[in-house]
Amino acid sequence: MKTAEIVSVGTELLMGQIADTNAQYIGQVFPELGIAHFYRQTVGDNLDRLTQSLKLALSRSDIVITIGGLGPTEDDITRDGIAAALDDPLIHDDQIAERLRKLFALRKFTWTESQNRQAQRPSCANPIDNPNGTASGLICQKNGKTIIAMPGPKGEFIPMVDGPVRHFLMELCGEEVLHSRLLRICGLGESVVEDRVRPLLNSTNPTIAPYAKPGEVHLRITARAANTELAEALIEPMETRIRSVLGDAIFGAGDTTLEYATLELLKARGLTVSVAESVTGGWIGQRMTSVPGASEVFKGGIISYTKEVKARELGVDPKLLDDPKIGPVSSEVAKQMAVGVRKAFDTDFGLSVTGNAGPTSDEGDKPVGLVYIGIAGPGRPTTEEFQFRGLREDIRYRAGQWALTALRRAILNLG
Amino acid sequence: MKTAEIVSVGTELLMGQIADTNAQYIGQVFPELGIAHFYRQTVGDNLDRLTQSLKLALSRSDIVITIGGLGPTEDDITRDGIAAALDDPLIHDDQIAERLRKLFALRKFTWTESQNRQAQRPSCANPIDNPNGTASGLICQKNGKTIIAMPGPKGEFIPMVDGPVRHFLMELCGEEVLHSRLLRICGLGESVVEDRVRPLLNSTNPTIAPYAKPGEVHLRITARAANTELAEALIEPMETRIRSVLGDAIFGAGDTTLEYATLELLKARGLTVSVAESVTGGWIGQRMTSVPGASEVFKGGIISYTKEVKARELGVDPKLLDDPKIGPVSSEVAKQMAVGVRKAFDTDFGLSVTGNAGPTSDEGDKPVGLVYIGIAGPGRPTTEEFQFRGLREDIRYRAGQWALTALRRAILNLG
Repeated sequence: MKTAEIVSVGTELLMGQIADTNAQYIGQVFPELGIAHFYRQTVGDNLDRLTQSLKLALSRSDIVITIGGLGPTEDDITRDGIAAALDDPLIHDDQIAERLRKLFALRKFTWTESQNRQAQRPSCANPIDNPNGTASGLICQKNGKTIIAMPGPKGEFIPMVDGPVRHFLMELCGEEVLHSRLLRICGLGESVVEDRVRPLLNSTNPTIAPYAKPGEVHLRITARAANTELAEALIEPMETRIRSVLGDAIFGAGDTTLEYATLELLKARGLTVSVAESVTGGWIGQRMTSVPGASEVFKGGIISYTKEVKARELGVDPKLLDDPKIGPVSSEVAKQMAVGVRKAFDTDFGLSVTGNAGPTSDEGDKPVGLVYIGIAGPGRPTTEEFQFRGLREDIRYRAGQWALTALRRAILNLG
Repeated sequence: MKTAEIVSVGTELLMGQIADTNAQYIGQVFPELGIAHFYRQTVGDNLDRLTQSLKLALSRSDIVITIGGLGPTEDDITRDGIAAALDDPLIHDDQIAERLRKLFALRKFTWTESQNRQAQRPSCANPIDNPNGTASGLICQKNGKTIIAMPGPKGEFIPMVDGPVRHFLMELCGEEVLHSRLLRICGLGESVVEDRVRPLLNSTNPTIAPYAKPGEVHLRITARAANTELAEALIEPMETRIRSVLGDAIFGAGDTTLEYATLELLKARGLTVSVAESVTGGWIGQRMTSVPGASEVFKGGIISYTKEVKARELGVDPKLLDDPKIGPVSSEVAKQMAVGVRKAFDTDFGLSVTGNAGPTSDEGDKPVGLVYIGIAGPGRPTTEEFQFRGLREDIRYRAGQWALTALRRAILNLG
């Protein structure tokens, strides 16, 4: 089994200005490829310290992944560090330079001499094309060791990992794999999920482990086998058993988000939806439209952040809004918002959310965290009341999760 | 100046199951206390490897902070690792054991023998009380080096850092502090910002460093001084010089988000805004409403994800929408969306975004990344065209950033 080690480069990581989500991301890829991963290092933008860290990593791991430090400025020292650690000269790569010049011409950027730094590479390196930015990745192989250098911006890093780097690592490694499948559950708390799957928790291959996430629960099934297919064969019967006790509460697997699962369900049944968002302020719409092709079933919505907009755009009765005993955060208003947006947007479902996310209770005497979700559909409109805890953004996110959960249930209840 | 190094312990960190937000958190504390921080290590739950990592950290740093691995199970090996690295025997601490037993009685938990592991400590260690969990922290001092061990759960770690550990480190290190101020810039690219501040980049105390972020640029001014006040006195004149060359492009400092700055600007001038979102699908609304008290100036908006909604709810001319040469992703439609939402919501400004975020070009022949932003206000409506790169969510986020930037400019242009 080959071993890999990550060396993340950047003073901003040490200073805590950004979270190292890239290291986290590729950390999830190693087990899938059967690569062991025992250490991770983080170093600042300092050539000596980076070189020492790379030498240490090369001394104990087969594959070293560097993240960041491939930009054009003097601060970007990863290329120099790799050259020093591998004792391999840096050379100017004409093909990289040519690609960079074309890119700059296309974007009408001004070419500066410093850009030439991005055309440098250790002589043993093969460049990895980066369609999302100016920094080429590098695969450097020398003395039986491999260093793979990738740029730090997430939009460049992730496609490079998922494409050429994953492919390269699969070729390079591949004996025993650790393969896992994630099941995603909504509408049930972690303790309920755990209770239902308790008899399965002692299984050793595959193992199963539940994780509580905001507004959903994840259940990871992990198997160890000679290859992915054999691991899948171990996972499949376990998944079947889990599905038999959790049923529809499992909305998807892997990366499937609740918004994606909900949109797919709508698509499959030829149904459309619109949203009326008060406390979430557009977040449900943002999540819906994060899914490519959402427009087939998601027509849009109204962000109604004032009473005036609720009344005029959604047809909510102003008397309810002004009634101190009812007001905008109420079951009645949630219902009228859902009915109103369904009518205005001419959709099969109207989904509404109104609530108080805090930090202070500015909705009369309604407590922080109180949220009403309304659904208008082919049947009678329904509403649900929730009391969420946490910070403003937690409450808003959970409101969105439970709104999507409620919509999903309403669709499933159509039979 | 003392140096510190973090050693995060946990296989779940290497596997990427959780992000190491604790390391990020304490990484922000070191500079405030004048502690330098050059390396971070992450290791799994393996005693040999942890011991090696701790020895390496002790060889190059004055203070080593371990995070995690202080639980009661066999997997929790941090106490053993520290004892091995410091060559100091583990002893049973009666006071810790007593506290644990009381805690268990209070919570009606069942006491098991394995709990005794949590009462162990290296003989040189002083325990740190943990009111939020069962694992005591440890401060171990030997041979001029210090190891501080803290538990991994965030709700235990953060109060321990902010309370006793911060206090201990201040006593230990109180010589020089590293204090910094972050200026946030919109509407200018990193290279333009760098060009304008180039004469200042050579300054050594304070230093200034630009960072490119999606749709904005950050400029960090960092000063080293005997205390925070003296550091501030070094930062202030530098900030004045930077502001004189960047002017209004600086929208805020520190944690100020673009949405917060924009809402504050609207509030200060008694202006209101509404949004018409196509490609961003509610994201701008979500961001606006993430700011407490947004409803004073943000009335809401229309998420218009289909042609039909653009026409009916925003009054966009259907002929423009159906014209293959114009279509929904066009300057003309952006303009009519902005005018339409401003009228429907009766606000001072209407802000619109329409574009194609990909992954495929489903908007006729409009390229992925093409975005139009429209502003309707007291003067003539205006639009801007952008060609963004990256993944779907990058394009959508950047569209939101530039929309807020455009709105901010329009407000400032009112004079």
